[in-house]
Amino acid sequence: MKTVTQSLAEFVVSTEANVLPDWSIHEAKRTLINMLAISLSASRAEGARIVLDWVRDEAAAEHASVIGAGVGTSPGIAALANGFLCHLQDYDDTHFPTILHPTAPVWPAVLALAEKHAATGRDTLAAFVLGAEAACRVAISVHPWHYDQGWHITGTAGVFGAAAGAGRILGLDKDKLTNALGVAGTLAAGVREVFGTHGKPLHAGHAAEAGLRAATWAQHGFTGGSDIIGGRRGFWAVASRDGHSEDALLGEFGERWELRNNGLKPFANGIVSHPIQQGVIELRDEHALKPDQIESISVRVHPLVVELMNRADPRVGLEGKFSFQHCAAAALVDGAGHDAQFTDEKVRDPVIAGVRAKVAATVDEAIMEDEVYLTVKLVDGRTLDKHVVHATGSPTNPMTDDALEEKYRALAGEVLPAQQSGDLLSAVWALDEAADVQAVTRLMRK
Amino acid sequence: MKTVTQSLAEFVVSTEANVLPDWSIHEAKRTLINMLAISLSASRAEGARIVLDWVRDEAAAEHASVIGAGVGTSPGIAALANGFLCHLQDYDDTHFPTILHPTAPVWPAVLALAEKHAATGRDTLAAFVLGAEAACRVAISVHPWHYDQGWHITGTAGVFGAAAGAGRILGLDKDKLTNALGVAGTLAAGVREVFGTHGKPLHAGHAAEAGLRAATWAQHGFTGGSDIIGGRRGFWAVASRDGHSEDALLGEFGERWELRNNGLKPFANGIVSHPIQQGVIELRDEHALKPDQIESISVRVHPLVVELMNRADPRVGLEGKFSFQHCAAAALVDGAGHDAQFTDEKVRDPVIAGVRAKVAATVDEAIMEDEVYLTVKLVDGRTLDKHVVHATGSPTNPMTDDALEEKYRALAGEVLPAQQSGDLLSAVWALDEAADVQAVTRLMRK
Repeated sequence: MKTVTQSLAEFVVSTEANVLPDWSIHEAKRTLINMLAISLSASRAEGARIVLDWVRDEAAAEHASVIGAGVGTSPGIAALANGFLCHLQDYDDTHFPTILHPTAPVWPAVLALAEKHAATGRDTLAAFVLGAEAACRVAISVHPWHYDQGWHITGTAGVFGAAAGAGRILGLDKDKLTNALGVAGTLAAGVREVFGTHGKPLHAGHAAEAGLRAATWAQHGFTGGSDIIGGRRGFWAVASRDGHSEDALLGEFGERWELRNNGLKPFANGIVSHPIQQGVIELRDEHALKPDQIESISVRVHPLVVELMNRADPRVGLEGKFSFQHCAAAALVDGAGHDAQFTDEKVRDPVIAGVRAKVAATVDEAIMEDEVYLTVKLVDGRTLDKHVVHATGSPTNPMTDDALEEKYRALAGEVLPAQQSGDLLSAVWALDEAADVQAVTRLMRK
Repeated sequence: MKTVTQSLAEFVVSTEANVLPDWSIHEAKRTLINMLAISLSASRAEGARIVLDWVRDEAAAEHASVIGAGVGTSPGIAALANGFLCHLQDYDDTHFPTILHPTAPVWPAVLALAEKHAATGRDTLAAFVLGAEAACRVAISVHPWHYDQGWHITGTAGVFGAAAGAGRILGLDKDKLTNALGVAGTLAAGVREVFGTHGKPLHAGHAAEAGLRAATWAQHGFTGGSDIIGGRRGFWAVASRDGHSEDALLGEFGERWELRNNGLKPFANGIVSHPIQQGVIELRDEHALKPDQIESISVRVHPLVVELMNRADPRVGLEGKFSFQHCAAAALVDGAGHDAQFTDEKVRDPVIAGVRAKVAATVDEAIMEDEVYLTVKLVDGRTLDKHVVHATGSPTNPMTDDALEEKYRALAGEVLPAQQSGDLLSAVWALDEAADVQAVTRLMRK
C-alpha cells in the first residue's frame, strides 16, 4: 500500500519528459521568461541588495548563477536568492485556484541544480513542469483551509514543488524522492503575518533552497520518512487541521494539470485595476495618444476598484500601486504598469499627476471584476470608447507571448545590455532544443 | 504600546552581560561542554557524513568551524551542521517543562557568529543564556498545545532563540532584533512526523541557521514585521491555535529563568532506565565489580520501566536502547551508557550478553520514575544493595560537573587526541575570562 507522498513521488519520477504536453513545455518557457524579467528588475531593490551582499559574503563555490547579480554561488544559495528576487515585487505568476505562486519556489531550485549538472534544456523544462504541478497539487489539496489559517501557501506548498523539481534533475528514484519530500516538507514555513515585509519574498527563497537541499541530501541517503503529507503528524494533520483533499492531490494524474490554471501578471500592482490599465494602453496604442491631448478619462468599474484603489492623490510609490487614478495615468503616459511606474518619482511626476487629476470612476454592480468600460475625451472634442470584456493575465485569458516579450524587454532592459537581453530571451524560447541549460544561465548573471 | 515580540526583544537586548547570574554563565559552559561531547561523537555517524560532505561541497568562505569535521565554512552553514550534529543522537539537553532542546538550535548560532566576529568569551556565554531563555520562553508560551498539534518544538521555538542569541552577538538594537525575530519566526518549521529520520536533527540545524541568517540580514535593514509572535497571523495564532500564554512568555523577566529548568542527559538512551544505570555504575565503582563476579542483578522499579523497556534479548543496537537488561549489563561491564554502548557489536558482545541474562525486574507502584532499588548478588555469596532516590539529569538533581567531564572525555576521546580534548575542555571552563571565543572554536574543528 502506497502512502500519498509515495504516490506523488511516483508521478513525478515516472512521467517521461517527452510525453509532457507541448503547451506545458511552452508554459515553462513563459514562466522562465517572466521570472528572468521580474528578477532582473528586482535585483536593484533595497531588499535585494541585502541578500546579494550576503550571497557574496558566503563566497560559496560557483556552481549556479544569481539572476542579475554578476555572481555565482552554490545551488542552494542561488535558489534562495533567485526565489527571493522572483517574489520581491509581487510580480510573479499565480495559480489562480490557490493564490500559490509556483515559479518563485520551483524554478530557482530546478535552474540552479540544472546549471550545476549541465542538464539538457528539455529535462530542465520537464523538471519545472512536474515540480510546479506537485506544488500546485499540494496547494490545492489544502485550499482554502491552510491559507485561511494564516499560512503563506507559496512558502509552504512551495517546498514540495522545489524538492520534486530538484529531484527530477538529480534523477532520484521513488524512494529517494519520498525521503526528499519528507525533508523538504518538514521545513515548510511562512506565515502571512510578515506580508508587507522582506519576510514574504523570503518564503519563496526558503522554499526553493529547502527543496533543493532536501533532494541533494536524499540522493546520498538522507531520510525523511514515508509520508510527510498524509502521515499522522504530517503536513495535512499539522498545518491544515480544518480540512484537506486527497483527490485534489492525487486524482487524474496526466489529465488534470494544475499548471493550466497558472497566469502571468501584466501589471505590477493589484489585479483589480488591470482592466483599466489594459484599456488605456490599447486606446493609447490605437490612437497614439499623448498626455496633452487628454480632457478626461472616465471608467465604469466593478465596485472593488473604488473600494480598494480610490486614491486621487498618492504621495509615494507604494500608494500609487493602490490608486486606480495613478494606474490609469501612468498607463496613458508610459504605456506600462511595471515597478518603474510606481516609484516615488513617478508618483510626483507633473505630467502623470496632470493626467491623474482627470481620471474619474463610476461604480456599476453589473460589471465583472476583469471588465471595464472606458471613455476618453480629448481636448480636440473627440470621444474614444473601449470595452475590455476580460482583462488578460488569467488562465482563461492569458497574456500573449507578445505582451510577455514586451514586459520582458521593459524589465530586463533596466539591467542587461540590449544585445544580452535579446540573446537571453532567444535562448529561453529555444531551451527545449538546447543540449545544456547553461545556454540560458550563463546569460542571466548580468 | 509594545507588541509581545518587541517586549521579548527588549529583554534580550537590554540585559547586560555582567548582570547575568553566575549560575547561568556556569550552565552555559556546561551546555557547551555537553554539545561538544555529543557533536564530536555524532560526527562519525552516517547522517553526519552526508551533511559534512555537503558542507565541503558548498565550500563557503571559512569564518566558522564545524565540530569535529576539520572544516571551516560560513556562519550559517556551520550553524546548520552543528545544530544537526548536536541533536543527531538525541543526547543533548532538555528543558523539562516543554521537552525543548535549547542548546542544539541556540549554541550553534551563537558560536558561529561569535567566532566570525571574535566576540569575547563573556559576551558569547551571555548571548547563549539570553538566546536559550528566549527559546524556552517561546516554547513554554505555547506548551502543551503546540507540541500536541504535532510540531517539534525544538525546530519551531528554536528559531527565536537562535535569532536572539545571534542578535546579541551582532549588537542589534530592539527594532532590528524585532525584525530578526520576525524573519526567523516565519521560518519556524519541523513536524513530529519525521521523528526517527534525519529530519529530526535537521530541525535543530535549520533553526540555528534560520535564526543566525535572520539576525545577519536584519542588521542590514531586512524587515520582518513588528509582532511575529502575537500578531494576528503570527506564531501563536497560526501554529498554536489551541492556546498560548503571554505571561509565560513575558512574565518575571530576570526573576524566573527557564534555563534553570534545563537538564543534561547522563545516558544516551530513554530516561526511564537511567536510575538503574546510575545505581549499577555506583556499585561497580564502589566495589570494583567485574562481569564474572555477577550472580544476578535484581531491580525494583516504576512500572514504566517494564512497560517500555522490557527486552531481554535485543539483537541490534537500537533495540539495546530500549532494553533495561542491556542498559544494566552495559553499565556493569563498561561503566557507561553512551552511544558506544548501543552499537550492534555491543549488543552481541558475549560478556555483556552474559550479564544481561542475569538481570531481572520487579514492578512496584510505590517507586518513583527517577528511583530504583538494586540488589546485586555475587558468585562469592555477597549481596550488595543500592537505593537511588533521584537519578541525576533532571533540573532538581543535575549531573555533577565531574559526571559531565566524564561524559565529555568518553565522547570527545572517540574523535580528538587526548591533549586537544583536554585543552578544549579547559578552554570552555575558562571561557568567561577569554578575550576571544576562538580560544574554544579553533580547538573543536578536529
